[in-house]
Amino acid sequence: MQCRMDALGITMRPHGKTAKSIDVINLFEPKHRQKITVSTLKEAEYYFDNGVKDLMYAVGIAPCKLPRLLALIRKGAKISVVLDSLQQVAFLSQCGHDNNVEIPALIEIDCDDHRAGIVPEDPKLIEIGRALNEWPGVCLKGVMTHAGGSYDCQSIEQIKNLAELEKQAALKCVERLNQSQLTCDVVSIGSTPTAMFCEELNGITEIRAGVFMFQDLVMHGLGICETDEIALSVLTSVIGRHELKNWLLVDAGWMALSRDRGTQNQSIDYKYGQACDLAGVPIRHLLVESTNQEHGILAFSSPPIEPLKDTTIGTILRILPNHACATAAMHNQYYVTQDNKTISEVWQRVNGW
Amino acid sequence: MQCRMDALGITMRPHGKTAKSIDVINLFEPKHRQKITVSTLKEAEYYFDNGVKDLMYAVGIAPCKLPRLLALIRKGAKISVVLDSLQQVAFLSQCGHDNNVEIPALIEIDCDDHRAGIVPEDPKLIEIGRALNEWPGVCLKGVMTHAGGSYDCQSIEQIKNLAELEKQAALKCVERLNQSQLTCDVVSIGSTPTAMFCEELNGITEIRAGVFMFQDLVMHGLGICETDEIALSVLTSVIGRHELKNWLLVDAGWMALSRDRGTQNQSIDYKYGQACDLAGVPIRHLLVESTNQEHGILAFSSPPIEPLKDTTIGTILRILPNHACATAAMHNQYYVTQDNKTISEVWQRVNGW
Repeated sequence: MQCRMDALGITMRPHGKTAKSIDVINLFEPKHRQKITVSTLKEAEYYFDNGVKDLMYAVGIAPCKLPRLLALIRKGAKISVVLDSLQQVAFLSQCGHDNNVEIPALIEIDCDDHRAGIVPEDPKLIEIGRALNEWPGVCLKGVMTHAGGSYDCQSIEQIKNLAELEKQAALKCVERLNQSQLTCDVVSIGSTPTAMFCEELNGITEIRAGVFMFQDLVMHGLGICETDEIALSVLTSVIGRHELKNWLLVDAGWMALSRDRGTQNQSIDYKYGQACDLAGVPIRHLLVESTNQEHGILAFSSPPIEPLKDTTIGTILRILPNHACATAAMHNQYYVTQDNKTISEVWQRVNGW
Repeated sequence: MQCRMDALGITMRPHGKTAKSIDVINLFEPKHRQKITVSTLKEAEYYFDNGVKDLMYAVGIAPCKLPRLLALIRKGAKISVVLDSLQQVAFLSQCGHDNNVEIPALIEIDCDDHRAGIVPEDPKLIEIGRALNEWPGVCLKGVMTHAGGSYDCQSIEQIKNLAELEKQAALKCVERLNQSQLTCDVVSIGSTPTAMFCEELNGITEIRAGVFMFQDLVMHGLGICETDEIALSVLTSVIGRHELKNWLLVDAGWMALSRDRGTQNQSIDYKYGQACDLAGVPIRHLLVESTNQEHGILAFSSPPIEPLKDTTIGTILRILPNHACATAAMHNQYYVTQDNKTISEVWQRVNGW
C-alpha cells in the first residue's frame, strides 16, 4: 500500500480502527504515519499518547463526545471531526466558542449510498460549509468520504468504478465549496479496496484505509490479496471429532473468531473462517462451518480431500478470518510470530470506547 | 429460575460464560451458586479466586489445557472436565498419574445432534466409562449433556419435547453405565430454554444455564421472557439522520452489539437489535437494520409509526441485544442502573482465555 501511495504521490492517514495498536502503525514509514484516522475517542487518546498528533475522528460527532474532544485539543492534539448536519455545526460552535478553541470539522459526503454523509449535490453542503466558515468556535477543514460499499463489489472492475466515483464525489464537493469561496485543506477518501485500485488522485490530499494492514478472506474474495498474505489468524486446538459427520470440534467459537459472515455473498463463502495447519497452509475446503461461544465446528465444504482421521485431539490449527477488524476485536492483544511457532512480541490493542 | 429449580427440588450449576462476572453470580441464593459451569480456564481461575470452589469446565478437554487445570486442582479447586473420547481419557490419565492427582471427568452426551458428545446408544460410552473408572489419575464423575438445539425451537411444545429428550438421554446413559457397574455422582443437563420448561427431574442432579441471567431477544422469540425482562442493553447516541431513507445513524455498531443475528430464523427478526428510548421502552418496529464497526443504522421494519423527526442528533437510545452472551462479550464491564439514568455500580467481566 505504501508503494502504491508513493507512486500516486499521496500520503496516507491510516485507519487505526483495524489494528488498534501503535505497534502495527509503527510498521509504516514515518511519512505515512504522521496522521491517523480513528473510530473511537479511546483510540484518539491512545494514539495521541503514543505520538500521533494529527487525528481524524471519523464517526459523526455527538454532544456527549465534546468533553473528551476538548481535553485532547487542550493537550495539543490536532484533531478534526466529521459531520453532515447544521445541528452538529451548532453544538460544536457553541462548545468551541464557550471554551475559546476552534474545532476543525470535515463535511462527510455520501459517495455510494452506503451509510452517513450528504450526497454531493445536496444544497446543505454549502449551508454547512458556510456555517463552519463563519460561526465561532469551528472551522471548515475539508471534506471526507468513505466508499464502504466497495466491500460488496463483485469484480475488480466494480471496485475501480467505485474508486473513481469516490474521488469524483469528493472533488465535486470541493468544486462546489470553492465556487462559494469556501476552501478545503483536506480532501480525504478511502477504503482498502478503493485505495488498492484507485488510479490517479489529483486533488485528493489523503487516503484512509485500515483492513489492508492484515488483509482477510473478504479482501481475498475481492481480489485484493492472496490467502498467504493474511497476517492475522487465530490458533485453536481440536477438542473433539464427529466421524459420522466428518466434523472436527475446535475451541475457537465466535468468542475468538467473531460472528462475521462477510464472505457470505462472495463467490467463495468461507463460513466462519478457513482452517489451516499450524504453518498457515490452508487445508483445502476445511471451513469453520458454525460457531458457538467457545466451540467451532470444522467441516469440509466439498467432499473431503484430506481425511480427518489424521487430525487427533490436541492438534493445533490456525483459522484465517473473514473480517480482520471483527476477529481482532475479540482479542486484547496480538501474539507476533516470524516463524508461526515462537512468539517474538506481544502487542496490545485498545478496545472499548 | 431459582423458584423453578426450588419447586423441582434441584440446585443449579449456573453457567458463568454469559455474565463472566462474580457480581452477577452473587445475585443467586447461596445454594444455587456453590457450583458453577465455565467455558474457559480464565473463567475457572477467576470464579475460583472469587470463592466458587466447585467448577465444571464444559468445553472438551485438550492437552494444552492441562497445566492450568493442574494448577487449579493444586490450589484446591474441585474442577471436573468433559470429554467424549478414549484419547482424552488417555492423556488425562497420564497427566493425573504423573502428577499424583485424580482428575474427575464427565462423559459428554449428544442429546440433540447439535455439537459435541456421543449418542446415548454409542458402545464407546461404556469403554470411556470403564477407562475413567479403571485407569490411574482419572475418575468417572458422571455424565453431562447440553440441549443447545433448543435455541432453534419454534414453539414451547418443541422446547418441552427437547427438555424431555435431554433428560432421557442423560438418564439412559446413567442406566447403561450402572448396568456395567459404573456409577454417576453427577447427572448434569441444561440450557436456558429447556431449564425453563423441564417438568420433572428425577435422577438429574444439576441444571446448567446462563443466558436467563440477562435474557435477550432470542429468548423472547422462544417465549421465555418479555422484552421488559431483558436486563442487558447498550446505550448509544444518534450521530446522523438520513431523512429520505428514514434512517437514524447511531454510534453502536457491531463493536458494541456483536454481529449476532440470532433472531434471523424466528417469527420476528430483530436484525441487530431492538431500539428503545432511554427508559428501555421499545420504539415500535425501530430496529438496528445493519452495522459497521462503530456505526449502526436504525430503520423501521414496518411503515413508520413514530416519525423520526423528533429524534435529533445526540438523543440517547438503548438497544436490546439478540444474544446476551455475544453482546456482553463486546464489553469489559457492566454499568449497573436501577433507574436507567444513574450508574450505581460497575461490574467487571472476565473476557479472554
